[in-house]
Amino acid sequence: MTKIKKVNAAILIIGNEILSGRTQDANTGTIALWLNSIGVKVQEVRVIPDIKKTIIDTVNLLKENNDYVFTTGGIGPTHDDITALSVAEAFGVKYEIHKEAFKILELYYKPGEFNEGRQKMVWMPQNAKLILNPTSGAPGFSVDNVFCLPGVPSILKSMLGGLKNEIVGGKPILSKTISLRTVESEIAKSLTNVQDNNKDVEIGSYPFFQAGKLGVSIVIRSEEQSKIDACVSQILNFINDKKIEVVDR
Amino acid sequence: MTKIKKVNAAILIIGNEILSGRTQDANTGTIALWLNSIGVKVQEVRVIPDIKKTIIDTVNLLKENNDYVFTTGGIGPTHDDITALSVAEAFGVKYEIHKEAFKILELYYKPGEFNEGRQKMVWMPQNAKLILNPTSGAPGFSVDNVFCLPGVPSILKSMLGGLKNEIVGGKPILSKTISLRTVESEIAKSLTNVQDNNKDVEIGSYPFFQAGKLGVSIVIRSEEQSKIDACVSQILNFINDKKIEVVDR
Repeated sequence: MTKIKKVNAAILIIGNEILSGRTQDANTGTIALWLNSIGVKVQEVRVIPDIKKTIIDTVNLLKENNDYVFTTGGIGPTHDDITALSVAEAFGVKYEIHKEAFKILELYYKPGEFNEGRQKMVWMPQNAKLILNPTSGAPGFSVDNVFCLPGVPSILKSMLGGLKNEIVGGKPILSKTISLRTVESEIAKSLTNVQDNNKDVEIGSYPFFQAGKLGVSIVIRSEEQSKIDACVSQILNFINDKKIEVVDR
Repeated sequence: MTKIKKVNAAILIIGNEILSGRTQDANTGTIALWLNSIGVKVQEVRVIPDIKKTIIDTVNLLKENNDYVFTTGGIGPTHDDITALSVAEAFGVKYEIHKEAFKILELYYKPGEFNEGRQKMVWMPQNAKLILNPTSGAPGFSVDNVFCLPGVPSILKSMLGGLKNEIVGGKPILSKTISLRTVESEIAKSLTNVQDNNKDVEIGSYPFFQAGKLGVSIVIRSEEQSKIDACVSQILNFINDKKIEVVDR
């Protein structure tokens, strides 16, 4: 049997507004779910401030340790938007006007509206590849394995579809959730046994509180449906023995 | 004038469920806002999987580079809860039953309910200091400058108050938001000037979309109210010149 290549990614959230607690990041979930569906596993997320040296150092580290890096934020028109400049320096290439991006925005805006502020958004690392933006015009870009997306969640979401052919994933990561009317301590030992017997499957246990009642969701993740099925059957066995109610599966 | 010591923190989110996109992290905002109020600035957030070596390495790195480290997640009763064990190994101390935590949970649960699963939650690094949990009994803990909190947002939130005397911050980080009916490109150049004239103040610009209309929030952050006031006045000057509507300030 051929061993399936694992494909990994890191997400780099660039923005003081997340670190200050002003804004809650919503992009990690969007990117991670989409990557899972094309067989790429997120192995790390970092949130860093709008500081050029920090961005450069972190991009350089993450691009070496991951098949793909996705950055969010910092590609708008204002002074705190320094992702493109920083990525150019990380790769040691020029930061310059991207001619195709310039044309796109020149057509996108009404005559006279493509002002100095907006023109900043077409400054990119030399030879950057554009990521088209069907929502608000200004494209993102990629350099090698680093993909730079905007911070606004709805815009970011609309741009992922266009990236599908750029990312070569492994097998999609499948997951199955079983929700139980119980508490974690009740199933901890049995669930440990299932995990020990299925070491290459990722089994997580997450308490929830819904409609005034406590419960636990067990999440089983693997690239192989048969491995998930085996775990599900072992879990249902002990749940049955313990007479625990299954809320959802 | 005495230079105010800057106090920094890192947040370490431990959990596959965030990386997979299943769960959206809500704890970063809670911790960051609380830390700001006591004069501690979050300079980095990392999300990592439930892998012991990764937790150990990351804790060791972050505790050296930051005044404080806050971890969330992985302190429950199931097999994927390995934060306490990993932090013990990071500090090179024993992982053992914490007698005070044992007593707390023995009293918290009804007779007979403090079972093997729940007893796992009192295993901690040797000499860990407890962080009391007014919501669900099981305490968090700290070792040196590393504070380990649970992943469930409501429980985590209820535990922060008890930490106030453990954290020595600098001056509280103040912030002022001015929301405008404009687009970023319209104010980008003027705002750059304000930033250039006030280099030690953090000025961020964030587009928003509310009630069908576009706007921009300018956020100004500093430990000094007078520096914020100076920026506000410079910003209001150019807004006035440009006849931009102020939505909220």
